[in-house]
Amino acid sequence: MTKHRPLILVANDDGITAPGIIALVSVMKEFGDVVVVAPDKPQSGMGHAITINSTLRIYKSNFHNVLDEYSCSGTPVDCVKIAVNKILKRKPDLCVSGINHGSNMSINIIYSGTMSAAVEGAIEGIPSIGFSLCNHSIDADFTASKNIVRKITANVLNNGLPHGVCLNVNIPPLGESEIKGIRICRQARANWIEELDERNDPSGNKYYWLTGKFVNFEEGNTETDAWALDNNYVSVVPVQFDLTAHHAIDFLKSKNYE
Amino acid sequence: MTKHRPLILVANDDGITAPGIIALVSVMKEFGDVVVVAPDKPQSGMGHAITINSTLRIYKSNFHNVLDEYSCSGTPVDCVKIAVNKILKRKPDLCVSGINHGSNMSINIIYSGTMSAAVEGAIEGIPSIGFSLCNHSIDADFTASKNIVRKITANVLNNGLPHGVCLNVNIPPLGESEIKGIRICRQARANWIEELDERNDPSGNKYYWLTGKFVNFEEGNTETDAWALDNNYVSVVPVQFDLTAHHAIDFLKSKNYE
Repeated sequence: MTKHRPLILVANDDGITAPGIIALVSVMKEFGDVVVVAPDKPQSGMGHAITINSTLRIYKSNFHNVLDEYSCSGTPVDCVKIAVNKILKRKPDLCVSGINHGSNMSINIIYSGTMSAAVEGAIEGIPSIGFSLCNHSIDADFTASKNIVRKITANVLNNGLPHGVCLNVNIPPLGESEIKGIRICRQARANWIEELDERNDPSGNKYYWLTGKFVNFEEGNTETDAWALDNNYVSVVPVQFDLTAHHAIDFLKSKNYE
Repeated sequence: MTKHRPLILVANDDGITAPGIIALVSVMKEFGDVVVVAPDKPQSGMGHAITINSTLRIYKSNFHNVLDEYSCSGTPVDCVKIAVNKILKRKPDLCVSGINHGSNMSINIIYSGTMSAAVEGAIEGIPSIGFSLCNHSIDADFTASKNIVRKITANVLNNGLPHGVCLNVNIPPLGESEIKGIRICRQARANWIEELDERNDPSGNKYYWLTGKFVNFEEGNTETDAWALDNNYVSVVPVQFDLTAHHAIDFLKSKNYE
């Protein structure tokens, strides 16, 4: 480990003034010099989107009272890219994203702007963590979350992470005394059963809200993040960006594609 | 295999009138009944974004002369979700996306709207394939691509795919006689070295274009999609949506998080 004070990049997907990022920044200040680059508006559900068909703007901000701070017109991934390549003088020692207002466990990770910022940090070779509190409310209480964030951040700064791996941390919406501990897990096999909520606009034309019901296909499996959260544990899932289904290569090779 | 004529869902990210989707639809008509649900405007770089903070609209269209056809105001993933849950009467036998104007090999898959539609198809339990031609031009020649699409589609319809796996197919920008064949590969470790192209607007305020240079960290590795394409082969990579870095679980368990 280098002896300098860590340089920490903070991003999120709920926007630069969200209560979740305020809580995250307040903990990061204990660990190092903080630079915040976060969206200028909510960007939930943006997945790993980047802005390539339009332009990006950044605006100097002074909301968090940190080393440096910008709001960005783009997605969470854009925030990390512009921070690393334009704003920061050196590669940060840590990239954290969140604290998201709402769960990013199981299949939700693939739609998550919060986690895409952490994954982009990992792609850039930075130890990275995404934090989410399983409570969508803007008034969610982040008190217990801050202690979890503190513990996990200290561990990552001390022990590092394997190359190409970041962490997906989900915190149950409970008081500190009710949280049973931290579990290292894998992503549960689960999915959304979508319900397209159909409505009519004032002119009588149909429009839809995307909504749905979460269904866990591995109910009761103690290795999964869904089980950990259902049982009042914090879930920590190591996440990679190699999407190759290595186990399927032999199957395909046996089917005469080549 | 069931004996009915296959029902095939076609999506893309370049928009419902792009030459790439016209080429794809023309081949799919040979295999079954085709339903097209595609974005009403280009959605490149949208990754696995979904629309949750605003509404979705679909518009009946009659451009491709198929069984049913809609343009959608949302992202490629929205198109698949609304097709499966609102438009289609039964689960399709195949979901194809593309043909993308431009490469989606290696790390590009994570930013790709084309591939996110195929991955969403796989999440829904549908055999799914994303096709990309490594040529960004709107005037790209899809003649050779159509034969590749035909061959791979026939194989998937005959042999199926492992559960939770879709295919990422990239086609080199060559004439048919120059393409050496098809290779089953894994995603190459590679990344973009970003260059934020800084410009001034007419009022003198800065803005940025996200651009960059692709760097392959595994130059010469014959198992990778990057090698296949560099050597005039079509690359076929099996892709999964379980993002858990299973190999990192033991590392984390040894570091006293729990």
